[in-house]
Amino acid sequence: MMTRKKPLILVTNDDGISAPGIRTLIAIMKEIGDVIVVAPDKPQSAMGHAITINNTLYFNKINIDDDVQEEYSCSGTPVDCIKLAVHEILKRKPDLCVSGINHGSNSSINVIYSGTMSAALEAGMEGIPAIGFSLLDYAWDADFESSRSFIKKITLETLKNGLPKGVILNVNIPKLTKDKIKGIKVCRQANARWEETFDKRTNPQGRDYYWLTGEFVNEDKGEDTDEAALENGFISIVPVQYDLTAHHAIKYINDWNI
Amino acid sequence: MMTRKKPLILVTNDDGISAPGIRTLIAIMKEIGDVIVVAPDKPQSAMGHAITINNTLYFNKINIDDDVQEEYSCSGTPVDCIKLAVHEILKRKPDLCVSGINHGSNSSINVIYSGTMSAALEAGMEGIPAIGFSLLDYAWDADFESSRSFIKKITLETLKNGLPKGVILNVNIPKLTKDKIKGIKVCRQANARWEETFDKRTNPQGRDYYWLTGEFVNEDKGEDTDEAALENGFISIVPVQYDLTAHHAIKYINDWNI
Repeated sequence: MMTRKKPLILVTNDDGISAPGIRTLIAIMKEIGDVIVVAPDKPQSAMGHAITINNTLYFNKINIDDDVQEEYSCSGTPVDCIKLAVHEILKRKPDLCVSGINHGSNSSINVIYSGTMSAALEAGMEGIPAIGFSLLDYAWDADFESSRSFIKKITLETLKNGLPKGVILNVNIPKLTKDKIKGIKVCRQANARWEETFDKRTNPQGRDYYWLTGEFVNEDKGEDTDEAALENGFISIVPVQYDLTAHHAIKYINDWNI
Repeated sequence: MMTRKKPLILVTNDDGISAPGIRTLIAIMKEIGDVIVVAPDKPQSAMGHAITINNTLYFNKINIDDDVQEEYSCSGTPVDCIKLAVHEILKRKPDLCVSGINHGSNSSINVIYSGTMSAALEAGMEGIPAIGFSLLDYAWDADFESSRSFIKKITLETLKNGLPKGVILNVNIPKLTKDKIKGIKVCRQANARWEETFDKRTNPQGRDYYWLTGEFVNEDKGEDTDEAALENGFISIVPVQYDLTAHHAIKYINDWNI
């Protein structure tokens, strides 16, 4: 009789290895395959695709809960975690990498700033099918349970079908109870943006300093966007890529006098 | 008689405000318009699109050389510099943002890790035409003079023609003397990658630590790539975008059972 080999799944995030979001994701992935966790030892939100080149990297084998998965906490960024996992920790290339569940949205333009999604993109660059999962709730004690069956379904379909070369999935989940989630929609990234304001304060030494704050503005009224899907109670899947070439602009610039 | 208004140009980089690369870029831009510099107070290479959300931001009005441009050094990342410049420092939206000249390549996949290019992308997201310039020489005393006339020409053409919405230019310059540079080519991003290796060492306390190192691998033999242009002695221009949607993959995933 043939034994069906379990897939090897690499799990990471940007909220840190002890965040409830990644603990839920680990639990879901253990129903599907063999899990190895390599995640930051502290919060690394909004780190984008930063890597550590001017400093040293450390990692520790640890065990956060009583379960048996192999876990490593890493001193670097989410992208560092992927590089360390693939080239130093794992004995073979994983069959899948999942990142998250992020505490907070990575829809539309947030994908650019997101450590969660940058880790998934990095795995994609290494040739590993990769998915980033985010819940539209920034709270530490957010309800991740409602999304479990959807995350499992998307993961199983990804393992079954594979992903086109260079394509990574950005999955965002509305803050709704399971019975209120209407389904899953494949979308394009909404053309939304942050309108920044800086909160100016003065420190005890009399020097001005600033906190970055901002308002999310979506002027993209397309019904095929991730923002539209989420507003209407659907989980959004945006297939994203790390080839940033704006192919449509090549001819335009070729007509310049250069 | 009508007075022709000079364009307002925002200059930034990721190597830090005192790097020779940005000093050359400032000098070139002063031949074209009014220049305001907002750049990191220390090196911020490989910071990608990181932003500072869990810490305070500072900026100082300074004057690095004897010239008269307005300059601010900022405690944050290159992307922070753009946000602070646009929303706190500048009195009006600039007509152009240029980032660089980076000490080292930002061609092909390097665009993803690059603080220089992330600053340019952020400016593009703010609706400002933006260009990142990089020289394929990591040396602090690299020869930036050879590229001056090319940078000026690309900048003037960008100001004259404008850029399509959501498109930013990634310009890379080969390490060649001016007479050896064959011209300028508009390209797509090569599908190249870094093959990482970790240099493992032991610290004085007996704990293992790692340095990220790696080898650049380009298996993309396309003649229309930035890598091909640079290898053949041309300056490469890749139009890039922050809409990461892999539009070609939407139909594929829609056919899944989800």
